[in-house]
Amino acid sequence: MANKALLFDVDGTLVDSTYVHVECWWAAFIECGIAVPRVEIHRRIGMDGALLVRELLATFGGDHVDAAGAAGLANQISALHGRYYSADAVRLRPLPGARELLRAGREAGYTVVLATASSPEEFDIARDVLGCDEEVSAVTTGDDVHRAKPDSSVVDLAVRRAGVAPSDAIMIGDATWDAIAAGKAGVPSIAVRTGGIGEAELRGAGYTRIVEGVDVLWREIVASGAIST
Amino acid sequence: MANKALLFDVDGTLVDSTYVHVECWWAAFIECGIAVPRVEIHRRIGMDGALLVRELLATFGGDHVDAAGAAGLANQISALHGRYYSADAVRLRPLPGARELLRAGREAGYTVVLATASSPEEFDIARDVLGCDEEVSAVTTGDDVHRAKPDSSVVDLAVRRAGVAPSDAIMIGDATWDAIAAGKAGVPSIAVRTGGIGEAELRGAGYTRIVEGVDVLWREIVASGAIST
Repeated sequence: MANKALLFDVDGTLVDSTYVHVECWWAAFIECGIAVPRVEIHRRIGMDGALLVRELLATFGGDHVDAAGAAGLANQISALHGRYYSADAVRLRPLPGARELLRAGREAGYTVVLATASSPEEFDIARDVLGCDEEVSAVTTGDDVHRAKPDSSVVDLAVRRAGVAPSDAIMIGDATWDAIAAGKAGVPSIAVRTGGIGEAELRGAGYTRIVEGVDVLWREIVASGAIST
Repeated sequence: MANKALLFDVDGTLVDSTYVHVECWWAAFIECGIAVPRVEIHRRIGMDGALLVRELLATFGGDHVDAAGAAGLANQISALHGRYYSADAVRLRPLPGARELLRAGREAGYTVVLATASSPEEFDIARDVLGCDEEVSAVTTGDDVHRAKPDSSVVDLAVRRAGVAPSDAIMIGDATWDAIAAGKAGVPSIAVRTGGIGEAELRGAGYTRIVEGVDVLWREIVASGAIST
């Protein structure tokens, strides 16, 4: 086959980390005196962390935020989230079929890219959980791009590192942000439901296909002919 | 107005507990050697706890479950969940507008019922978090019924305790199970999105209206004329 690439979001797609992230962000906000309904965090998991904090502070920050203090508070919340998430690393597991899909993709000749914008520290945690370095041709992390999803930078870079045309790549993600970023980059996208986002929301974000999880994804890709092997 | 009742689910509707329950169930399964994708737990939050455990064991239990040992294992997982949830009680907060809605409902002449099937221990935790006993006319807990949602027993009982006809009550919940149970009981239902379940799933379960959370619910009920004041 021609050179084709599978670009994988990591959190919620390959690693069961979405709900852990929700609790860690929640605890970080609480530590700063701000109670945020968890569903509001959940919907923003997978978007740029700085943007997540900014949006939630604007809505729920109340008296805790003034123009001068907002940036410092945002940095503090992000640092706390990072600390709590590292401490909760023992609670992470690969999602069913994640390792098998990476291996099957590589063996079928796809260039496999992990296209995340999480911090290098968080990415190292996910990488340890997956234990699949030998299947992966390239990675991106938050250190590689100025803005994370829904900006297209991560997907643009992943496509370049894969060395393929955008239309020869496919983005696999669990959040609305993955599809929005992929759409801007001209990359088709497939959603998995393992991040807990509803089907209508995923479809509205631009995913062309939606499956339950990566355990059924390989079969679906092949069956659909979305990428021919 | 005629005697009318508001029946409230508690977890995820009035108290921000859904995501805490997910993590506690996850930890209980892991303690027994069984990794369950968190989204599979999330979708079952609010259903009967014994049914939740049975369904997840059947799908993910693998070698851990044989016919003889399943009941004992299920009891062990439920007990662990209860212990972890009690320990995590400090992580619970009322959802925005929950207290205000209970008060507004009572002051407008509605009979306010908390219609949960959680254990008395878990209900006591939620009650402490809410601190709204004076607004509430009646409650149900898991001790009152043999089967929790999606069975209609909880809603049937809540309607009886409210002393109204089913069509003069309205069930307010965040999970698909609340609408299914209410539908069987002949009670109309309104969904809040704070449990993190997608709009299409909520609508498919039979909710007639869907709003973001209880903070906008009172206005919506009055505006819609779903229950006239």
